[in-house]
Amino acid sequence: MTSLRIAEIFGPTVQGEGALIGEPTVFVRTGGCDYRCVWCDSLHAVASEFRHTWAAMTTDDIWNDITRLSQGKPLTVSLSGGNPAIQDFAPLITLGHEHGYKFALETQGSIARPWFSQIDTLVLSPKPPSSGETVDWTAFDACLEAAQDAGTVVMKIVIFDDKDYDWARDVADAYPALPLYLQPGNPEVDPNVAVDPQALSDRLLWLVDKVMEDAWFTPRVLPQLHVMLWGNKRGV
Amino acid sequence: MTSLRIAEIFGPTVQGEGALIGEPTVFVRTGGCDYRCVWCDSLHAVASEFRHTWAAMTTDDIWNDITRLSQGKPLTVSLSGGNPAIQDFAPLITLGHEHGYKFALETQGSIARPWFSQIDTLVLSPKPPSSGETVDWTAFDACLEAAQDAGTVVMKIVIFDDKDYDWARDVADAYPALPLYLQPGNPEVDPNVAVDPQALSDRLLWLVDKVMEDAWFTPRVLPQLHVMLWGNKRGV
Repeated sequence: MTSLRIAEIFGPTVQGEGALIGEPTVFVRTGGCDYRCVWCDSLHAVASEFRHTWAAMTTDDIWNDITRLSQGKPLTVSLSGGNPAIQDFAPLITLGHEHGYKFALETQGSIARPWFSQIDTLVLSPKPPSSGETVDWTAFDACLEAAQDAGTVVMKIVIFDDKDYDWARDVADAYPALPLYLQPGNPEVDPNVAVDPQALSDRLLWLVDKVMEDAWFTPRVLPQLHVMLWGNKRGV
Repeated sequence: MTSLRIAEIFGPTVQGEGALIGEPTVFVRTGGCDYRCVWCDSLHAVASEFRHTWAAMTTDDIWNDITRLSQGKPLTVSLSGGNPAIQDFAPLITLGHEHGYKFALETQGSIARPWFSQIDTLVLSPKPPSSGETVDWTAFDACLEAAQDAGTVVMKIVIFDDKDYDWARDVADAYPALPLYLQPGNPEVDPNVAVDPQALSDRLLWLVDKVMEDAWFTPRVLPQLHVMLWGNKRGV
């Protein structure tokens, strides 16, 4: 059986952001990413110096962890990373669906996979200019194409500054049919340093104010609830 | 034209709780309630000593406020209270729909109205034992019946203590088809006293822990985001 690179599996806990905010979830965080966002909050699943911490797991290994953590009761499994689209999760999704589990996938939209069509909630999060990455929109469109039979497809954009915000407006104009979720960027990503709750609130307030001043009423504006609750602690 | 009792109209701001959390919204808070929940966080729209502060507004008056606040750009209007079901919002909803606006309604489910069928997102929030109120489930079922043609119907339950939690589990069992949102109760409702952010987080963590320990994976668990951001300040 092929093995997959897994940075961590944890939960159940609530999904902290985006379309499924508040939803009970087991997270499967995959190792490896084709991006190097300068503000990445999951470097332990991205940077090669953490590669030795990733487990090589078969689909059955991962499934065993999911069923153990969820006590065998179906819930939503969130595949995140890194970029989970690097690897093949079709067998895991097929297995989980047979047992009533649902799957959410979070990916930047740089790599399309046929198994996107099996996903219940696909979250495409193209990275704004502040990331230092440049979006390949042909690849992004290929992801949308691959996800035509997916349950729900939404877009999530992280906003760090005015330039990101203007970029998000352009992206929203280009993809008017995709439900859009905005969240303020979090520059405090060190798991060993407590986050400043007032600064977290202030960044969300800044974004809410901008959206409302522009009478831009199509996106939802949400925080990273897990950061408000647990800071950058891992495994929650 | 009939006049309606309105406690406040404000926004646009983000919906702070439940199914539409993060959604840009203008709030129309109606005056008057058939309940007197002991922990009510909107007494200024409920208690008769505030009645002199409620405006008598026609549907056109309300509509003018909504379009002014939203700069004429369609968004979701949230009807809350008090209990908005006491009054007749059919003309406002018809008018708003003609202009592309959507309507959410938040009500405890004690009074059914034919115009529930026009609502885009109906949030029924039966009050748990800690409220001091007793739910009339026949009336609640009549609300569901009236809402058969509504866009989306969900249930939201506020949880203050273990007894409320056990009650919510029973209610969830009785209405398995209704998407359920849980939120921790907020005993700090004085608009003149700053809320304690740690206490807010702790109440949400308590609820998340209970839900996860019970492997109860069907409800979403969400905070009152507006209280995290603005405390009990009014008009935001």
